[in-house]
Amino acid sequence: MPHKGLAEIRVLYADTDAMGIVYHTNYIKWFEVGRTELFREVGVTHDRLEAFGLFMPVTKAYCHYYAPARYDELLMLETEMIYVKRVSMKFRSVIRDKSERKLLVEGYTVHGCTDCEGRVVRLPEELAFDIRRLL
Amino acid sequence: MPHKGLAEIRVLYADTDAMGIVYHTNYIKWFEVGRTELFREVGVTHDRLEAFGLFMPVTKAYCHYYAPARYDELLMLETEMIYVKRVSMKFRSVIRDKSERKLLVEGYTVHGCTDCEGRVVRLPEELAFDIRRLL
Amino acid sequence: MPHKGLAEIRVLYADTDAMGIVYHTNYIKWFEVGRTELFREVGVTHDRLEAFGLFMPVTKAYCHYYAPARYDELLMLETEMIYVKRVSMKFRSVIRDKSERKLLVEGYTVHGCTDCEGRVVRLPEELAFDIRRLL
Amino acid sequence: MPHKGLAEIRVLYADTDAMGIVYHTNYIKWFEVGRTELFREVGVTHDRLEAFGLFMPVTKAYCHYYAPARYDELLMLETEMIYVKRVSMKFRSVIRDKSERKLLVEGYTVHGCTDCEGRVVRLPEELAFDIRRLL
Repeated sequence: MPHKGLAEIRVLYADTDAMGIVYHTNYIKWFEVGRTELFREVGVTHDRLEAFGLFMPVTKAYCHYYAPARYDELLMLETEMIYVKRVSMKFRSVIRDKSERKLLVEGYTVHGCTDCEGRVVRLPEELAFDIRRLL
Repeated sequence: MPHKGLAEIRVLYADTDAMGIVYHTNYIKWFEVGRTELFREVGVTHDRLEAFGLFMPVTKAYCHYYAPARYDELLMLETEMIYVKRVSMKFRSVIRDKSERKLLVEGYTVHGCTDCEGRVVRLPEELAFDIRRLL
Repeated sequence: MPHKGLAEIRVLYADTDAMGIVYHTNYIKWFEVGRTELFREVGVTHDRLEAFGLFMPVTKAYCHYYAPARYDELLMLETEMIYVKRVSMKFRSVIRDKSERKLLVEGYTVHGCTDCEGRVVRLPEELAFDIRRLL
Repeated sequence: MPHKGLAEIRVLYADTDAMGIVYHTNYIKWFEVGRTELFREVGVTHDRLEAFGLFMPVTKAYCHYYAPARYDELLMLETEMIYVKRVSMKFRSVIRDKSERKLLVEGYTVHGCTDCEGRVVRLPEELAFDIRRLL
């Protein structure tokens, strides 16, 4: 069974909109929290990526919104790695409200692997090895 | 041929991230600009939706990132209506850099139709009629 | 000595800009985290404010930027209540980087007390009593 | 009389919060729009600053909130240069609602002048000359 990273999110006013609910792009922004923490667990830190001169920009993002989160709610973000390929990888992200475990949103991001000038490069084997430990 | 709404976007520092490019969720945020202006063209304004007690929250969002936009670039956002159904509608959004017309991102949002408490309601025929003029 | 609320902030790509540092308004956004947690400590929760029909919108905000935070840094936010008056209150916020305790920014927000329509109202004595426990 | 730069802002859902009003840090974010356009008027563009290897990060920001803006309102942002010194400069920003000219917020930002590594440097005379045309 794949490893799932867990992170808590507390909804701020900054995250909500005038419909009284969390603005839709903020869930996708929160997905970043989960990816970063998952990577940290296997030692793939920012400093290490920087030493390789690598970026992993988002190439595709999708989110399905089932139910809205509201101000001050405590949310639970679940992140899992779906695949790691030569020049791309995919994460699945699910956000639930923490108390009732109700599904709020589910989505994914696909990431490329580039150098600092944005040219596609192959993921170094040493990093790929560590990242595959998340599968 | 469907009508396409056009809007200009100027990239601020606020929109960029430490990779030197626009942060990925900001394109999806900009999609909102295009939808609102398209609706305004056919008289579907916020005041009118409010008079009906209606919200049109995002239920699905997708974005494919082809090339990054950078600080201070002038972008062109193209929006078109894909469908209008009883309780949902879909918009397609494309962002290009304005000078060279290079494709940067392409995506869509699907929207539900709810009352102020978030209950799904049928789109009133009077509004649906005006919105279908965008098809 | 006044009570100081402490909260950790992890810098996301979403928070940074193309200068490679945290975008300046995001520190002020983070100030909200500290205020909310401080209020929660003395039982002044969102649900309770809502039961009173009260909002506490920001009426003044100030921030002095001493040194920049960067992507993935772990920050420490310190919040303290400066005063509580009949219809306003003030918080002071300081953000340091967590490992070296270096001062990054220092600022404040002043808040009014309004009903749901934005009319200034006097802070109910019951709430004022609890909030003053933070002084 | 100092020159005042004018820019229009349309309030998106993304800019509002669950109080039904624009989230307070977004006005300060909009101040950036005015500064950039004012600079552009006197030829101080991003490309030119980049050629000098210069950044002008915010060192102080202040905003006084008089009345809230709401979703879909059209706002008018007025920006003027207050001073230009050797290593710093100050802008004043005012936002009104466009139709009634009602004052919503008033604030300022102070900026330093640094190289790409964040070291304070003196503003090059050639740039200072152009920027002073805004006084």
